[in-house]
Amino acid sequence: MSPAIVSISAKSGTGKTTLVVKLIAELKQRGYRVGAIKHDTHNFSMDREGKDSWRFTEAGADTMMVTSSEKLAIIKQNPERREPPIRESIERYFGDMDIVLTEGFKKNDFPKIEVHRRERSTRLLYRDDSYDPTLIAVASDSPLQIDVPVFDLNDAVSICDFIEKRFLRPR
Amino acid sequence: MSPAIVSISAKSGTGKTTLVVKLIAELKQRGYRVGAIKHDTHNFSMDREGKDSWRFTEAGADTMMVTSSEKLAIIKQNPERREPPIRESIERYFGDMDIVLTEGFKKNDFPKIEVHRRERSTRLLYRDDSYDPTLIAVASDSPLQIDVPVFDLNDAVSICDFIEKRFLRPR
Repeated sequence: MSPAIVSISAKSGTGKTTLVVKLIAELKQRGYRVGAIKHDTHNFSMDREGKDSWRFTEAGADTMMVTSSEKLAIIKQNPERREPPIRESIERYFGDMDIVLTEGFKKNDFPKIEVHRRERSTRLLYRDDSYDPTLIAVASDSPLQIDVPVFDLNDAVSICDFIEKRFLRPR
Repeated sequence: MSPAIVSISAKSGTGKTTLVVKLIAELKQRGYRVGAIKHDTHNFSMDREGKDSWRFTEAGADTMMVTSSEKLAIIKQNPERREPPIRESIERYFGDMDIVLTEGFKKNDFPKIEVHRRERSTRLLYRDDSYDPTLIAVASDSPLQIDVPVFDLNDAVSICDFIEKRFLRPR
């Protein structure tokens, strides 16, 4: 079965990560298997210099995995430095999740919750800057009059209620 | 297509990693897509405290991925803290590799190259301690009289020649 996917999006500098972290914790508490994806700049660092796993990657390993009873970690180089389609990666790596939250993918057709802070901008990315029909809700620090539900940015419980009702079967 | 798999094994403290690193570099130079797997203790650390990706995992994400044009990194918690069979993980994550080198799996049925240093032990793990038919070669710092080829521990080129002839089609 494919997981539900919800994209947490915003203009840069709005502070999406804190909300994503809260939603992960709240969804976990409700018993779901939760995946999280962050889109990052080309050359993000993972792993630590000098470790064996790091040495494998440095030596040129195209795919490197460290495995234990607790977890596995994989670093996979993209052939020709081209990112595989995100839906393909979700199918491949997140097939056993109930829900996947993505952050940092501004342009895709996933259902989106826009994070909004008045001091960052009075305009919404997916309503004012251009109309995007995949917007399903806004998490904001101020009241807004728009055509989708608006939640308090800090109210992860209500946002999870909304996500759960819309995408997940109650357990 | 499934990748070739060669396990680099040894008694603890023999220093397998340096050989694995050399083999990765040599195989890459020959144009192969190379995977590497390290078996580690339960709670190895990957990622860095405080980073967004780290915060996702800390919040409870069962699968966490960071993706960019250059690479992707995944940290996946094992359900019930039980490691999935290594062949399953290889099929799932290394299907696009030509060859996979594994380190730290002492007991499996992969073809094995034993790393040996006289000062660590005069006895071979897969011959003297117990006879293992999956042993295909030994990389040692001293001459040995046994029923499989023995290579100089530092001669990654000859070891790669051997691996290439046995498991990979010349390109």
